[in-house]
Amino acid sequence: MRDFSQDHRWLSINTATVRKQRGVDWPLLDILDACAARGIRAVSPWRDQVAAAGLQATANRLKSHGLELSGYCRGGMFTYTDTASRQAVRDDNRRALDEACTLGAPCLVLVVGGLPGGLAGKAAHRDIAGAREQVTEGIAALLQDARERRMPLAIEPLHPMFAADRACINTLEQALDVCDLLDPLAPTGADRHAGSAALGVAIDVYHLWWDPKLRAQIERVGADRLLAFHVCDWLTPTTDLLNDRGMMGDGVIDIARIRGWVEAQGFNGYSEVEIFSAANWWQRDGGEVLDTCIERHRRCV
Amino acid sequence: MRDFSQDHRWLSINTATVRKQRGVDWPLLDILDACAARGIRAVSPWRDQVAAAGLQATANRLKSHGLELSGYCRGGMFTYTDTASRQAVRDDNRRALDEACTLGAPCLVLVVGGLPGGLAGKAAHRDIAGAREQVTEGIAALLQDARERRMPLAIEPLHPMFAADRACINTLEQALDVCDLLDPLAPTGADRHAGSAALGVAIDVYHLWWDPKLRAQIERVGADRLLAFHVCDWLTPTTDLLNDRGMMGDGVIDIARIRGWVEAQGFNGYSEVEIFSAANWWQRDGGEVLDTCIERHRRCV
Repeated sequence: MRDFSQDHRWLSINTATVRKQRGVDWPLLDILDACAARGIRAVSPWRDQVAAAGLQATANRLKSHGLELSGYCRGGMFTYTDTASRQAVRDDNRRALDEACTLGAPCLVLVVGGLPGGLAGKAAHRDIAGAREQVTEGIAALLQDARERRMPLAIEPLHPMFAADRACINTLEQALDVCDLLDPLAPTGADRHAGSAALGVAIDVYHLWWDPKLRAQIERVGADRLLAFHVCDWLTPTTDLLNDRGMMGDGVIDIARIRGWVEAQGFNGYSEVEIFSAANWWQRDGGEVLDTCIERHRRCV
Repeated sequence: MRDFSQDHRWLSINTATVRKQRGVDWPLLDILDACAARGIRAVSPWRDQVAAAGLQATANRLKSHGLELSGYCRGGMFTYTDTASRQAVRDDNRRALDEACTLGAPCLVLVVGGLPGGLAGKAAHRDIAGAREQVTEGIAALLQDARERRMPLAIEPLHPMFAADRACINTLEQALDVCDLLDPLAPTGADRHAGSAALGVAIDVYHLWWDPKLRAQIERVGADRLLAFHVCDWLTPTTDLLNDRGMMGDGVIDIARIRGWVEAQGFNGYSEVEIFSAANWWQRDGGEVLDTCIERHRRCV
C-alpha cells in the first residue's frame, strides 16, 4: 500500500468539493489555478462547471497547469418514460463522452439514475426492477459509443438512500454483475492491467463503506475494472441525505482500510476527494478547503 | 396472496406511528383504546411507551380489548466498548424479553446497534467489522435467554444509512447469514411452520425495498424465520434520515409486490404500520392518523 503521509502526489480534487466558497459559486478556472498552486496534480470536474467555464478554456487551463484528470463527472441518468427522452439521454451522454475525450479524462463516471421522475419528487412508477433493466440497456448502448472513443465507463454505485432519485445501482456487487453481463473479461490477456476495461466501476467509500460484502466484492473487481477511487467521510449524525458529506477524518469510515483492499487489487491511481457540504465546507474559503484536503489526505486516507 | 382491500383484519399499528399527536406525546393506553375502537386487532408497542404507561397496566388494557401483539420494540444495541456495558445491555435485553412475555408478544424485535457511541455522535472507533462480531456474539448470548422463555428474536436489518448509529446489520442477506450461523434449521421437521424459529427476521419494506437481492433473500427466509412484516413508504425527497417516513401510497415502494413475495413464503401474519414522521403525521390528530392507516392498508398494502 502506498504511503500517502509524506506528500499529496496521489490526491485528486473532485471540483464539487469546492463548487462554492463562502456560499457562492467558485469559477472552475479559479479552482484549477488554486489546485495547481498547491501542487495538486489531478482533478475531476463536473460537466456544469466545465460548461460554465467553457470546454476549450478548461482544456487549455488543464494543459497549461499540467493537471491530469482522475475522472469526468458525470454521465448516466438512463431511466426514462418515453423513447424521446431515452434518445435525448443517449445524445447527452455521447456529448459527455466527447467532452471527456477533449479533457483527457481516464473515464466517464456514470450515475445511472433512479426511478424516472424521482429526482423531481414525482416518480412515474414504483418499478425499481424495471428501472434497473433500463439502466442496463442504457449502459449497453452507450458502451458502443464509449468503445469507439476508447473512453472507459465507470459505473458508480450510489448509497441505497439514493435508489429512488439518483441511482438504482446501489452495491458494488450489483455494478459488477452489470459489468459481467455487458463487458465480460477474458480470464487472461495482455489488456488486463489497471483501468483497461471498457466498463468498470468507481468506488466511493461514502456510498459503499457500510456493505458487509465490500471487501469480497473489491476482491472481485480486479485492477482492470477499478477506474476510480473516491473518498470523503460519513458523519454521525448526517443531517442531509445529499449535501452533508464529511471531510476525511471527521466521520466513521475506515478509509485507509478500504484503500488497502483497493490497492491490493493493483489500483495505483488517484484518491479523489468528493465532498458535498452545503452547511460547512462550501461556506468556507476555497483555498482553506483545499489545504484541509491535502492535510487530511496525508493523515486519514 | 390475501386480499386486504375489504377489511383491515391484518393491520397492526406500531405505536411509534402515533407516538405523538399534534406534536405532543399520546399516552399508550389512549392509543390502545383508539385502536380497539376502530376494530384494529393488533399493535406493536415500544418499550419506552410501555414503561410510561406501566407494564401491567398495558397488559391489562391489551387483554380487556382483546388486542394481539405483532411484535415488541425493541431489544438489541449489542455493541460496546467495555465489559460492564456489555453486561448492562444483556441485562436490559433480558428485561425486554420478560416484558415481551408478559405482553404476549410473538417476538422481540432486535435493532442490533451500530458503532459503539455512534448514536451519540461519538463513535468509539471505525471498525464496523468488529461491531458486527459483537452483534453476533450478543445475539448468541441472548438467544439462550430467548429459548428459555420461548420468545423468538427477530433481527431487523436497518437501512444502510443507519449502519453507523443504529444497526450494522443492513441487508436481509446479512441477517439470514447470522440466523444460519446461530440457529441453523434442520432441513425438515415438525417445527417448520410460520414463526417457529427461535431466531428469525423482521422485514421492513422501508429498510429493504432498494435491495436488488430482496426477492431472492425473501425466498431464502422461509416461513419459520419470517417473524414480522413492517410497512410504510420512502418519500422523494426524504428530508430527515430518521423521522421522515411516509404513509403507504405516498412514496415509491411497491409494497404489494413485496408482500406478495413474503406471503409466497407462507407468511400469514399482520402487516405492521411503522411510521416515524416528525414534521407530518406526529403533528396531526392521532385518530385521523389511524383512520388513514386503515384506508391506506386497504388500498396500498
